[in-house]
Amino acid sequence: MSFKFELLNQDANCSARLGKVYTKNGLFNTPIFMPVGTQGTVKAISPRELKELGAEIILANTYHLYLRPGHKLIEKAGGLHKFISWDRPILTDSGGFQVMSLAKLRKIDKNGVTFQSHIDGSYHLFNPKKVIEIQNALNADIIMCFDECTPYPTTYEYAKKSAEITIKWARECKQFHKKVNTQALFGIVQGSIYPELRIQNAMQLIEMDFQGYAIGGLSVGEEKPIMYKILNILNPILPQNKPRYLMGVGSPEDILEGIEQGIDMFDCVMPTRNARNGMVFTRNGKLVIRNAIYKQDLRPIDDQCTCYACKNFSRAYIRHLFNVEEILGLRLTTIHNLHFYLQIINKARKAIIENRYLEFKKDFLATYN
Amino acid sequence: MSFKFELLNQDANCSARLGKVYTKNGLFNTPIFMPVGTQGTVKAISPRELKELGAEIILANTYHLYLRPGHKLIEKAGGLHKFISWDRPILTDSGGFQVMSLAKLRKIDKNGVTFQSHIDGSYHLFNPKKVIEIQNALNADIIMCFDECTPYPTTYEYAKKSAEITIKWARECKQFHKKVNTQALFGIVQGSIYPELRIQNAMQLIEMDFQGYAIGGLSVGEEKPIMYKILNILNPILPQNKPRYLMGVGSPEDILEGIEQGIDMFDCVMPTRNARNGMVFTRNGKLVIRNAIYKQDLRPIDDQCTCYACKNFSRAYIRHLFNVEEILGLRLTTIHNLHFYLQIINKARKAIIENRYLEFKKDFLATYN
Repeated sequence: MSFKFELLNQDANCSARLGKVYTKNGLFNTPIFMPVGTQGTVKAISPRELKELGAEIILANTYHLYLRPGHKLIEKAGGLHKFISWDRPILTDSGGFQVMSLAKLRKIDKNGVTFQSHIDGSYHLFNPKKVIEIQNALNADIIMCFDECTPYPTTYEYAKKSAEITIKWARECKQFHKKVNTQALFGIVQGSIYPELRIQNAMQLIEMDFQGYAIGGLSVGEEKPIMYKILNILNPILPQNKPRYLMGVGSPEDILEGIEQGIDMFDCVMPTRNARNGMVFTRNGKLVIRNAIYKQDLRPIDDQCTCYACKNFSRAYIRHLFNVEEILGLRLTTIHNLHFYLQIINKARKAIIENRYLEFKKDFLATYN
Repeated sequence: MSFKFELLNQDANCSARLGKVYTKNGLFNTPIFMPVGTQGTVKAISPRELKELGAEIILANTYHLYLRPGHKLIEKAGGLHKFISWDRPILTDSGGFQVMSLAKLRKIDKNGVTFQSHIDGSYHLFNPKKVIEIQNALNADIIMCFDECTPYPTTYEYAKKSAEITIKWARECKQFHKKVNTQALFGIVQGSIYPELRIQNAMQLIEMDFQGYAIGGLSVGEEKPIMYKILNILNPILPQNKPRYLMGVGSPEDILEGIEQGIDMFDCVMPTRNARNGMVFTRNGKLVIRNAIYKQDLRPIDDQCTCYACKNFSRAYIRHLFNVEEILGLRLTTIHNLHFYLQIINKARKAIIENRYLEFKKDFLATYN
């Protein structure tokens, strides 16, 4: 099935949207949270567990898969879905974020970005042609334009120049994209914290007519009100009939804010990374399972939770597993945290159908904070 | 249900036995391989996965659970089964082996063994009373007498003295055992590599009438023919109507040899530990999945294997997971290796029913070596 976005409902009292996105590997519902499978696996859990958790789409990182095991091998294996044994939709990012955050000795010029691998120091060149070639080989259902994700803070001058490069690259990505019928290409709005740059950037991308629009360069260290303001500015500008993806976001609070501002798609390492550090989400807020206070606590992480971890194991047992460095510990917290995120999304969807999203959000945050 | 061993068939051409062991948490079939859950979890996999693999009983280590999280907490949680969410039989060892192999500054005298924890250097005393008290608290279905597992090589004089201590301790363990109706207590035959000591030790234990007999102190560095000889000597001496357990063994070859010599129960960290090091078992022998030769190998680990790893993932993908240090890698090799061990046992059982155990063993080894 070719790519399509279907808007099913918009909440009567805010911009929260309910929709469906159709891809060649089936559909996913929006709003959606995409667990992050950086290196071709969502850390600590299996594809089977992901499905049982109700994950509908996962994200994988172009930068990492390009370096190891290499996109050519994945192509030879029949694409990323087959290689990692995941038959639902996949989105690959452009590598732009990792080139900026992980790679060493970056040099940006008209050819693209030359960088050194964070693994072995080898030199590589990423540019629109290369990044699209890699993503075509990986063959995810949704792919992203190559962009420069500016850090925070960034001067207006730098942000302006960078946004222009991102626009140029977006044009080239569209041009080099070989699989327009099977892989949807999304543009990425940059422009740092500057409303004027964001608006201009968004409008230029919209003119190019992408199949979806991402907002990049947020949640990179700026204060929350700044992010919320940018979302608020972009909300009326981005087309209603295309999915909107807020990249790398975020905390439960930020996701709920994003949904209110009309965002459909989210990804973040927070639930999985925090899980491996022993931090778990509950309806009453976060807790650190390693803490001594849980040593004799025979209750589940969250007594209203229905995940495998909460239905079978106590805080005391999971704390023990972390204490003695057993892998099952971080498997259980990962399952729990992803379940928590996906349940928030499920509840948000239900609230949007019933036009009570704002009420749901308020109630959730009242208990959570 | 109280403890019972039922001998169903003995192979017409060797001592291989087929049986059933009934415990308060259900039955398991013999011969059996018990995956090792040292710290209250079989490393890298979940209780659910263990059940799906067909594991019928697991082993847990008294020494480790005593140190962390402590037997009192586990007792408070309702026993080890409840604490770790495993409702099939469990066997706990006596801690004797770990006191000798892991603990620091051991001192053996008439009070027992004083040792320093390998974790924090704290001092502890293990003796028959203490070890039975711990195992009563953990509440496994089968518990073991406290023994001294002599290293290899050991002088005849030391082995003789040690075997006498083990007999004294066995007597005391029986005396201190509080839950005779719900926890079966096994004696452990020691005596190092000395036939005379082994025979004497076995006969003294048999006189005390335990519910099962283990053979300890083998597979500790001696040549294989020495172990096989001891098994051959003990085989006619150990009672036919009680289960026989060869502790800490072993490789597929050693298990098959043990079954031929009338052994019913085995445990070993080999399948799980090797898995975490990237070494997997196949019907054609072992392979190291990390090796560069598998980088582009899109076949499963073993193309005739039906485990989750082999049905869904390639050698190239699993190698990639090890290469980038992703947890799913060692989860998949652990599942595969345990499946391999449990399938050998299944095939051995089938062969014993049909009185063709020797033929099965010969065929297996011909392909495997």
